[in-house]
Formats: sequence, C-alpha cells, structure tokens
Amino acid sequence: MIDYTVGEDMIDPIVLKGFRDSLPNEEIPKRRIMRTLEDQFQNYGFVPIDTPALEYTQVLLGKGGGETDKQIFHFQDNGGREVAMRFDLTVPFARFLALHLAELPLPFKRYHMDKVWRGEKPQKGRFREFIQCDFDIVGVDNAQADFEILSLMDASFKKLGIEKYTFLVAHRGLFNFYLEKLGVKEESVEILRTVDKIKKIGEEEVLKLLTEITHSEEKAQSIIAYITPEEKDDFLTRLDKLVALCGAECESSLRLRQIYALLEATGIAKHFTLDPSITRGLDYYTGIVYETVLDELPQIGSVCSGGRYNNLASLYTKELLPGVGSSIGLDRLLAALTELNSPILANSSSVDFIIYYKEEETSKAMQYAKLMREANINTIVYLDPNKKMKAQYEYATKNNIKFALTFNDTCLSVKNLENRETVEYSSIEEVITQCNK
Amino acid sequence: MIDYTVGEDMIDPIVLKGFRDSLPNEEIPKRRIMRTLEDQFQNYGFVPIDTPALEYTQVLLGKGGGETDKQIFHFQDNGGREVAMRFDLTVPFARFLALHLAELPLPFKRYHMDKVWRGEKPQKGRFREFIQCDFDIVGVDNAQADFEILSLMDASFKKLGIEKYTFLVAHRGLFNFYLEKLGVKEESVEILRTVDKIKKIGEEEVLKLLTEITHSEEKAQSIIAYITPEEKDDFLTRLDKLVALCGAECESSLRLRQIYALLEATGIAKHFTLDPSITRGLDYYTGIVYETVLDELPQIGSVCSGGRYNNLASLYTKELLPGVGSSIGLDRLLAALTELNSPILANSSSVDFIIYYKEEETSKAMQYAKLMREANINTIVYLDPNKKMKAQYEYATKNNIKFALTFNDTCLSVKNLENRETVEYSSIEEVITQCNK
Repeated sequence: MIDYTVGEDMIDPIVLKGFRDSLPNEEIPKRRIMRTLEDQFQNYGFVPIDTPALEYTQVLLGKGGGETDKQIFHFQDNGGREVAMRFDLTVPFARFLALHLAELPLPFKRYHMDKVWRGEKPQKGRFREFIQCDFDIVGVDNAQADFEILSLMDASFKKLGIEKYTFLVAHRGLFNFYLEKLGVKEESVEILRTVDKIKKIGEEEVLKLLTEITHSEEKAQSIIAYITPEEKDDFLTRLDKLVALCGAECESSLRLRQIYALLEATGIAKHFTLDPSITRGLDYYTGIVYETVLDELPQIGSVCSGGRYNNLASLYTKELLPGVGSSIGLDRLLAALTELNSPILANSSSVDFIIYYKEEETSKAMQYAKLMREANINTIVYLDPNKKMKAQYEYATKNNIKFALTFNDTCLSVKNLENRETVEYSSIEEVITQCNK
Repeated sequence: MIDYTVGEDMIDPIVLKGFRDSLPNEEIPKRRIMRTLEDQFQNYGFVPIDTPALEYTQVLLGKGGGETDKQIFHFQDNGGREVAMRFDLTVPFARFLALHLAELPLPFKRYHMDKVWRGEKPQKGRFREFIQCDFDIVGVDNAQADFEILSLMDASFKKLGIEKYTFLVAHRGLFNFYLEKLGVKEESVEILRTVDKIKKIGEEEVLKLLTEITHSEEKAQSIIAYITPEEKDDFLTRLDKLVALCGAECESSLRLRQIYALLEATGIAKHFTLDPSITRGLDYYTGIVYETVLDELPQIGSVCSGGRYNNLASLYTKELLPGVGSSIGLDRLLAALTELNSPILANSSSVDFIIYYKEEETSKAMQYAKLMREANINTIVYLDPNKKMKAQYEYATKNNIKFALTFNDTCLSVKNLENRETVEYSSIEEVITQCNK
C-alpha cells in the first residue's frame, strides 16, 4: 500500500490555486488539437512565432503599468526590473511587430500557441494559467484578409471534426456609422460595451442602460432595432436592412458584401450569420468582429473570436499596422470537443501494441519492438516482466492499448484486447505487414 | 520609410535581457524538431504531461526555499503566496508523481517539453528562458528500463538526421563500489563532482584536487586510473578492466553487462562507449549516467544527458520511486542540427504555393486556394493584389515559397521559383494531381 502521509520532513506536493497539472488523458487530446490546428495554419501559409513569458511590466501594460494590476502576475526581478508574465498573446505580438517590422515580409501571417497567465479569481472552468491560440494577418486592410481569417476558422473547425457551428459576424465600422447618423457617436464606446452584454443581461436591461447613455429612449430603441435582426432573414437581407437603417451604403457595408461574396464563392457561407449585436468588448477593433456558436453546445460560449483592428502596435511604433485576427481558447475547445465526441479525440491512447515476454526473452522482445517501432507502429515493451500477468494486462487496459503481442520459439500471437480474439503469426515481419495493411 | 523614433508617448518595444523573441525562421525548425521528438516518444509509448509554470517556492526549492535563490524567478503573488517559476522539469515531475501516483499506471513513461526559467547571468547561447525536453521511465529499476531510455535516445538522434554521435555511458554505483574498496566512500560526493570537471579543467588539476580530498596521492592516482580507460578498448574490455580494478563483479557491473547485451541484440551498440569519467554533477543519480557527443561538433557539449535515480520524489512522498530519464536541451540541439545541415531542417518554409491574381479575380483565386489546401498543399493567396508584381515576387522569396500559380481565362501557369521554369495546365485539378504525384 502506498503511504501518502506527509511527515515533518516532507513537503505537501500541492499546486497553486487556479493552476493544475495536465495528466496524459488530458494532455494527449490537447496536443492532438494543437497539432491539428498547427497543420491547418500551415496549410494556409501562416508561420509560428514565440515571445518571452516574461516582459517589462511597462511594455505589457503601457504607461500606466507602474500601478499594480491585480489581474496579472508581476514582480521585481533579481535585477530590480519591474517584470510581468504575459496575460495574452496580442500585446506581445504588437510589441514583436514594432521590434521586428523590418525583418517581416508583409502581409505577415502568424500563429502563436502558448500559455498565458492571469491573476483573476479562479472559477469553474477558469484558470490562472491557460493556453491561447492566436492567428493574425498584419499589414493589409482589405476583404481578402478578412475573408482569409474567416475561411481559416471554418477550415479549422472542419478539421477538428466539429460539424454544427455558426460564426456570428458584425462590423464595428458599420455600427459606428449608424451611431453617427443617430447623433450618438461620442457615446459609441459605452454603447458598444453595453450592447456586448445583451446575451448576458437581456434586451430590457440593455434598453434601460442605452436610454441612460443616450438620454433618449427613442435612440435607445433605434439601437435595439439595429442589433436585433429578424430571425428568418439571411445574411444579405439583414445587411440590406442595416444599410436601410443607416440611410446609405458605406465603406463598411461594402466590405461586408465583398467578404460575403468570397464566402459564397468558396461554398462556406452557410456557416456565417450576420449578427449586429456582436461588438466584442475590446476597444481596438475597428472593422469586422466575430464570435462562434457551437450549435449543439450554445452554453459553452464562443471558442473562437476576434476581429479587425487598424492600429495594433501604436503603443510602440508610429507605423500604421492594420490587421485582422482570431483567438481560440484551447481549454474551452477541448471541453467542447470532448462533449461532442470529436473523432480526432476518438482514441485517447497513441499506443498500438504491448509486447509481453519472460525475463530470459528480453533480447528477443526488444528486437521485435525495434522492428515494429521502425515500421511506425507505436509499441510498448512491458518493462517489468516479473510482474504477474494480471498486472501486466491491467497496465494495457489503463493505457488503452489495442493489441498484445506474445511469442514463443515457434510462433507469435497477437491478441485484440477489445474483443479478445487471437491471431497467430510465424514471423514479426508478418505481424508488421498485417498491421500496415 | 518606416520611422522607428519612439516619441514621448511611445514605449520602447524591447525584451528583457536574457530573453528573446523567436521569429519564424527559428520557430519553424524548433517546432519541427519538437514534433519529430514527440512522434518518436509516442512511437516508444511515452505519454505527455504538463505542470504549471508557477509553483509554491517551497515545493520547487524544498524546505530551504524560503531563502532567496538568485538562480530562479520567485516572488510574492497578489494573494501573498511565495511562488516561483519552474527552473527545470525534473522537480515538478517529482512533485507530480507524488500527487498523482494513484492515478498513474506504473511503469509510467512520460515526456514533457516546455519552457523553464533561470535567473542566471545570460551568456552567449545561454538564456533565461529556454525549452527543455525530458523523458523518463518511473516505477521500475532494471536493465530493460535503462536500455529503453538509451534506445529511445538512439532512435531520436537517427530520426533527427544526426549520423555521427556517441553516447558516453558510466555507472555511478560501480564507481561508488570502487571508491568503497579504496576506502574513500565518505568522500564520494566530492570525488564525483571533481571527476565531473575533468574535461573542463584537465587531468592534472583533477589529480591535485583528488589528492586533497582523499589525503593520498596514491588513491588519487587510482581514481584517475579508473576514470581513464585506454582509447583502443571497446565497451566490454573497458568494463572488464573496471571490474578487475574493483576486484569483483557487483550488481552495477552486471547491470551494465545486461544493458550492453540489449544494445548489441538491437544493433545499436556501436553508438555507445563506456566512459567512466562521466558522473553527472547532480546528486540524485544512483545508477547509469550518460552524456552525448556529436562527433562532428564536440565543442557544442552534451545535447542529451541523464541517468538513473532511485528516489526522485522523496521530498514529497515516502513511496520509493526508482526511475531513469534523459533531458534534451532544445536550443543546443537546434544549433547543432542547423550546423549539421540536418535534412529535417532542409526547407525552412512549409509553404508550397503562392497564388497571384488581379483584384477582380479574387473569387477565383480563393476557390483555387481552397481546393489546393484541401488537397494538403500548403498555399498562400497573396493578400494584396494591388501591390506591384515585384513586391509580390519578393514576398515569395522571403517566405521561401517553391511555386507560383497565376491564371487567366484559359489556363493556369505554375512557375518554379527556383529555376524559373513554367508549366501550363488547363485546370486546377490537373495542378493538384501533378503536385500530389
């Protein structure tokens, strides 16, 4: 029996609140998702970058960075520098762009998948350490780039085995154009933030808040009308109605038309809905914005969101850097794929074979393992041949291994560990040939 | 022209001393190496885990952790907890084992590739943030497990395209057996650490230090004799001579014989040399220890080292957890593979095609891109069709793209961007078929 008592000279092996270990049954699917996404990003010609986990606090937080922000992990390092752990991948990317602009071919299409840290109060499903996965196109402001990000999102979802999903798209510029027409342009930031909450707090509450902000129930009603399209209307009908509300086409509505034409031309338009209530909370968005709904898991929230910003790196450089990008929350995506029984997570083990043998047959077992592994068959040699057979078979079950190989002087037996069927072979080459069929 | 002037309202986009950004030309090969290693680990049935970047300082440093250690990044978090960034993957693994032992099937074979942080003075090629890649087998103490780690190291090097390499193997237990016979067992830790420096400080200096430690030049000479095998002797001859020096076989020498028999049985023995001067600095090793020499780059140091420890998690649990493992320094490995022109880094781009088009042909270009990408051809659509052709072609060069696709109403042209040859096709399907040949 294992004794877990922690004596006086022992240290309790705990992790910090809001942090957690990732065991193989979680880490295997997580890495599989990340590799699937990486393949898809490369398929679109996006390239990877990395930035440090630690940066100058002022670089991450801007001039106000001297004041402590409870949301981030920051401290003074041994050299007396004020440093902070990155809390997202967007700010470091902006800093990266400003620093390396001369070396980067524009349009620059990058992805970045790595950990970020936040000091927020941990809640169910919310941790202080989590993995973000960002992809952006910087250096060009046109419908092609907007479309390319949406197209990549669509291709990624398909590759992940998600079948029913909807991308909700809106345009900040079009909304602002409408607010200007209404005469409430000055209050646009506050209005956008209020509208962003409509799914949480409901239409009635938003109407109340908008009335307070605009000092006019009529204007508030108009805004509600703008953000509440008719359920039955399709993308272009909704867009036509928004343009009618605005009184005229504008650059933003024309951009949406161009993007939609490309979605149609490539046969993926059915996954896109125009939802003018989408605004995204963040101030830096200027063009299209989007969120994701998994049709079968609406409660899980958006697993992939983003938009167009037209001056991301303005904190660090005078160079104007327009861009469009998207961010995937990997933990939420993993939770969703698990719940949806995604085929890419179908087999939690990546091991095909386990070889059992007697101590004196070790050399033979190792030779077999070598040949199987070289034939790309993932193989475990059970490393403790003196353990009882029962323990050895339990090990295979715990590791979700599919086949067991045993052997004697004259033949090799392959047992399917699911249905217990056994097939005999006369040589290891025969086993390998059968596997690779 | 880009203006890099940082005005009064701007922040200098610098990174911390000892930290660095990873641009695509470095990040692409780094990720390729990591994926190659991951495939190889899975091929051997190793599974991935992850642990938090931040832990309680005391958990990482032991009871003495309250005192500040200049080597690590540690601080008080917003909740007043003493926390530290992990400085290796071994200590968190020990803690992980103690915490999750009941859930882990033993023998537990895990790999872990991720960043660690150290506050050391940055030097050429040494950074404060770097990636480690560890793989270990825990829960069993026998020759099979020792061999499995060595075999995986060998397979990994082959997979990485390294041809000329030697693993230097020794056995701590055998050395200690010899020191006991010499009557200097009490001084063994000091002696092992001194011997570890022989390649740095030379034999003469080591002899001097050993004489001081053992108070006997004769004993010091004997130790030098033990650690200095004859160049011409092979593994077993060296081992026989060590056994002769010890006066008898012991468990450790027999273990080395078993391991070597498995290396021979699997045809990889030629890459292994017995080098009794290898001791590894760290105290926790108890059995075999090993380092790596790249025959063509001896100056680069060991890119992969490790050994057997018999009680890794003793700080956190009374359960005895024997193990054997190895660690790869990814930065050093990347530097080595670059210098060796490894074929796995042969093409720094993962993009095959770039599609050029006129603004009014955007839909067609996007349709072609979709079809090519779906056929697993990594494709870029040049996103700024109004740029001059010269700029568009420079972009392809900077991104190391192999082929350019252009098209008009009647045909498609594929230009090989290296030799400038052009081939014409009548449909996109024809292009795809040709690519996938």
